[in-house]
This record gives sequence, C-alpha cells and structure tokens, in this order.
Amino acid sequence: VDLEALVAGAREGRPRDIARLVSLVENGAPEVPQLMRALAESAGTARVIGITGSPGVGKSTTTSALISAFRVQGQRVGVLAVDPSSPFSGGALLGDRIRMQEHATDDGVFIRSMASRGHLGGLSATTPQALRVLEHAGCQTVLIETVGVGQSEVEVAGAADTTLVLLAPGMGDGIQAAKAGILEVGDIFVVNKADRDGADSTAREIRAMIGLGTRSEDGWRPPVLKTVASTSEGMAELVEAIDEHGAWLLASGQLAERRRRRARDEIEAIVLGSLRASIRRGPGAQRLDAAADAVASGRSDAYTEARVLVDEVVTGLS
Amino acid sequence: VDLEALVAGAREGRPRDIARLVSLVENGAPEVPQLMRALAESAGTARVIGITGSPGVGKSTTTSALISAFRVQGQRVGVLAVDPSSPFSGGALLGDRIRMQEHATDDGVFIRSMASRGHLGGLSATTPQALRVLEHAGCQTVLIETVGVGQSEVEVAGAADTTLVLLAPGMGDGIQAAKAGILEVGDIFVVNKADRDGADSTAREIRAMIGLGTRSEDGWRPPVLKTVASTSEGMAELVEAIDEHGAWLLASGQLAERRRRRARDEIEAIVLGSLRASIRRGPGAQRLDAAADAVASGRSDAYTEARVLVDEVVTGLS
Repeated sequence: VDLEALVAGAREGRPRDIARLVSLVENGAPEVPQLMRALAESAGTARVIGITGSPGVGKSTTTSALISAFRVQGQRVGVLAVDPSSPFSGGALLGDRIRMQEHATDDGVFIRSMASRGHLGGLSATTPQALRVLEHAGCQTVLIETVGVGQSEVEVAGAADTTLVLLAPGMGDGIQAAKAGILEVGDIFVVNKADRDGADSTAREIRAMIGLGTRSEDGWRPPVLKTVASTSEGMAELVEAIDEHGAWLLASGQLAERRRRRARDEIEAIVLGSLRASIRRGPGAQRLDAAADAVASGRSDAYTEARVLVDEVVTGLS
Repeated sequence: VDLEALVAGAREGRPRDIARLVSLVENGAPEVPQLMRALAESAGTARVIGITGSPGVGKSTTTSALISAFRVQGQRVGVLAVDPSSPFSGGALLGDRIRMQEHATDDGVFIRSMASRGHLGGLSATTPQALRVLEHAGCQTVLIETVGVGQSEVEVAGAADTTLVLLAPGMGDGIQAAKAGILEVGDIFVVNKADRDGADSTAREIRAMIGLGTRSEDGWRPPVLKTVASTSEGMAELVEAIDEHGAWLLASGQLAERRRRRARDEIEAIVLGSLRASIRRGPGAQRLDAAADAVASGRSDAYTEARVLVDEVVTGLS
C-alpha cells in the first residue's frame, strides 16, 4: 500500500482513494496507526450527525434527504452506514443503501457501508477512524447511519455531535423505546412517515417520555419533529433543528466535551483491543485455553485464572 | 455480606439467598471473585437454553411454557431474563416478566431479571456468573432469555448450550433476520404465534435462508418449528427438539467445546474489564484525559496515545 499517495489522493477528494483508506480502517490493516498519525490534524473538522432507529423507520430515506439539503448548501458530505448486527459476516449488507443511489454520481458525496466487526473495539474504534478519513477528504458534514437498537445506537450517539433518533407511527410502544435506551441518546427525535395514522400519538408519547424540561445531564431540550422523508416534508425544519443543536453545542461547551469523550473512547478501545489481541494470540492463547479448560471442568474459577493471565501475559507485553 | 451463609442457603434452594447472590454478581460486588471460587465446582451442572428474538415474538410466553414443561419432568428450573438494551438504566424492566407470573409461587423455579450493564465485560461476564449461582442452587435447566437483536443475541448464544431463535409471522423480512445475525447463532428456529397468517411463509423463508444441509461449522442441522406458546401448541415438539440437540451436543463433543469457549469468553471479559477499570481509575484516568485532549485537538492520534497508555498504566498494574 502506498499510503502517502492514497492520503494525497483522498485530500483531493478522489473517491477511490477515500474508499481504499476506509477499507484499511475497516479491515484493521497494519497501516492504520501510521494512517491515523498522518490524518491526526484533520480531527474535528466535520460536523458529525448520527442517525439511528429501528429497521423500517426510514433511516436511509432520511439520510438521502439530508444529503440533498446539505448539498444545496454547497457542502461536501460523507455518509458512513454502519451495520453493527452481525460479527460473523464480513461485509455490510447494501440493500438499504439503494435509497441513496441518487447521490451515487455526485462527487461531492461519499457514501460507504461499513461492517462493525472491526478489529480493535468494533464500532467504537473504526467509526472515528473512518470519520477522520472523511474529514481529511474535506467533508464538512458526515452522517453516520446505523441499523438496529440497543448498544449500537448508544455507540453511534457516542460517535456523533448530534444524534437523530427516528421513529415511525405504529412501530412499537413506548416501553420498547425506553428499553432500547434511545430516550437517553437522542438530541433530536423525528417521527418519520408522519403521513401515516398514529404519527401524532407517537410524537405525543415520545414527548411525554422525554419530559418537558431540559435534559439534566447537559441542559439540552430535545425537540420532537415530524417528517415524511420520501417527499422531503419537514426536512427544512429538521435541518434547522440540527443547526440549532450545533449552535447550542458550541455555545455550551458540549461540542468540545463530546469530542473529548469520543477521543477517550477511541483510545480506550485501541488499548483494550491490543490487549485482547495479545491474549488471543501467541503464548497468551495457549494459556487462555488451559485456563478455560480448568474453569469449564470446575477445577478453577474465572477470576483466579484471569489474575494469572494478567500477570503472565500482560506483564510480558510492555 | 456473610458469603458463607448465603452460599449455604442458596445450595438448599432458598430463593432469597439465591437472589442476593445474583445481585452481588449483577452489581459486580467485591465479593464476586471469592463467590466464584466457592462455586467453581458447580460449573456445567445445568443445561443452558438461550431464548432470543425481536421484541414481540413471544419470548416470555415461550419461556413460561418451557418452564412448565421442565417442571412436569420434575426439574428445578432457573430463568435469567437479560435486558441488554440500555447501559444507562440500572434495573432491568420487568414488564415482560409478568407473563411468567404463574411460576412466581413455585419454589422449584427461580426467575430473575438482570440488567447487563455489568461491571467487567457486561453480559459476557455476569451471565455465566449468575448461571453458576443457579447451578449451585440445584437448577438442572437454566433458561437465558434476552430482548433485542444484534450483538446481545450473539452473546446469549455464546452463553447457552442450545439457542432458540424465535420469530413471528409478519415481524420483518428475511433480510432483517440475516442482518441481525440470528441465522448463524440459532440451534433451533421457532416460528411462534403460528396461528397467525404468514406462519408458513415465515418458516419457509427461514428454511430457505439456513439451507437444507448441516451447518458447516459444527455439523448441526437447525430445525424450524411452529408453536403457539400461549396455548402450548407445538411445545412438546419444541422440548423434543431441545432434547435432540442436547443429545447431539454430547455425542459430537460440541458440549465440551461450547463450554470451553464460554469459559474462555468469561476469563477474557474479566481480564479486559479489570484492565479497563485500571485505565478509567486513578492515575490512568488523568493520563487518558490528557491523551483525549491531544487527540480531539489534532495534536496527536489515538494509536500513539494508546501505546503510551499501555506502557504507563498497564505496566504499573501487575
């Protein structure tokens, strides 16, 4: 890999070079540390918008409508569609991305599906790295879209400056929403497919659950909007809400705070990932197998064996 | 905490003592390593059945019907209902568990909801520990039920000897199922609510997706069953399929293999959890904050900072 050439090409916005750099990141290539050193100073140059919600709420359609809105403003836009669902399948499924096809020939838009199986820490490590590649390539806005519920949503929220939580009428009751932890992570709630029955009651339910006041942790009061992304209805208001949240992030100091937290998560994921690798490979792996046998057969317990592993393997590491 | 008394009480099957031990595990109490040493020899004495699927497919109703079936056989049954959805909320939501109420007064059944936020490694560490408590308490079968899709399902499959994947007619197309990674983890597929329209086509779709042959990794051929758990229709066949899978696990050597893998995951989760704690606390935490500042402001990159952290913090650990 001629890293220097790829980095130079990506800086000029060449899609193939950008794609190859993201692939390096996604595959955990040995060049990634060197690449990240080269891109370090691009950190924080893009606004990062996370888009999450259950399957079927219209994430890809909304993403596509947002791309259009930011393109009208003349921005370069990057999209990372993260599929955190299966650690077993190497490539992310591209089915949903068809809805973004209209932007496929626009060279001001870079769209990439990523599997999150990653190497060092999954989503928490590879997403900020891919983001850095897009920042280096001049994207002023990066949209991170993720399928699924639960932990992956929370991780996406951690990677974004502004997190949009999408819902759709009749997609499940409030308890399910609360279970998924989305109430805590959403900066803006969007009831999409709002031309369907039940949109108002879904919006009401979300409003009731997030409460009327500001969020205790950071003082932000998440708005609840209604959209029909497929016809762009409500998209102007959504873009406005995103801008308002962006202005608030800056004014409140939360932008710096969120980005510091993101960097902390990224570093931690790399540290733990490298330690995991050192446990799984080489002499550590054999030691772990023997320890597992002892625990599975009831001769020992996991804490005792973990202690021994830390002493033997980790100490030998540094 | 008088650990010895609790351990003795749990061995006699006293629900309050069992509950307190599970709480210790769930909260990552300082006594857990000592507890695990005391319970080490109970490892592997229960058959562990994982039950997973999207919200609304009838996991709790199926769990309840399975409890009844195993109780008829005279077994002591433990149930861990794991809620992996929110790392923010301390306690698991109990709404779904109402469907298991009929077993609440049966002292041969121990039911417990667990949040998975855990301390050291989340689900991967606390679930096997809670399982060990139930094994120690004499449960011959332990059902681990989990909400949600994606990573949590895969983790549940890792914790179980036999994993049931529940589906319901009209709950989403095959692509969604493939995304969730459930095809790879299911040992038995159950189309529940089979009295509804579309049950046959859902079963057909799953059969088409898992293929006709045996699974390449281990040689098992997952059956696809239809049930109506609320009326116990098809439950006898489900219990039979579970028994068949259990016999196959033993004969093929996969039982030992799966339990060894489970022990390996548990040990690894504890190792990484203790390292994470050492990074987040004390001098490591200050170092991490400074490193995050450097990365967020573009002065450094995460790999460089991670390297320094490993050298400084981890070396000082052992």
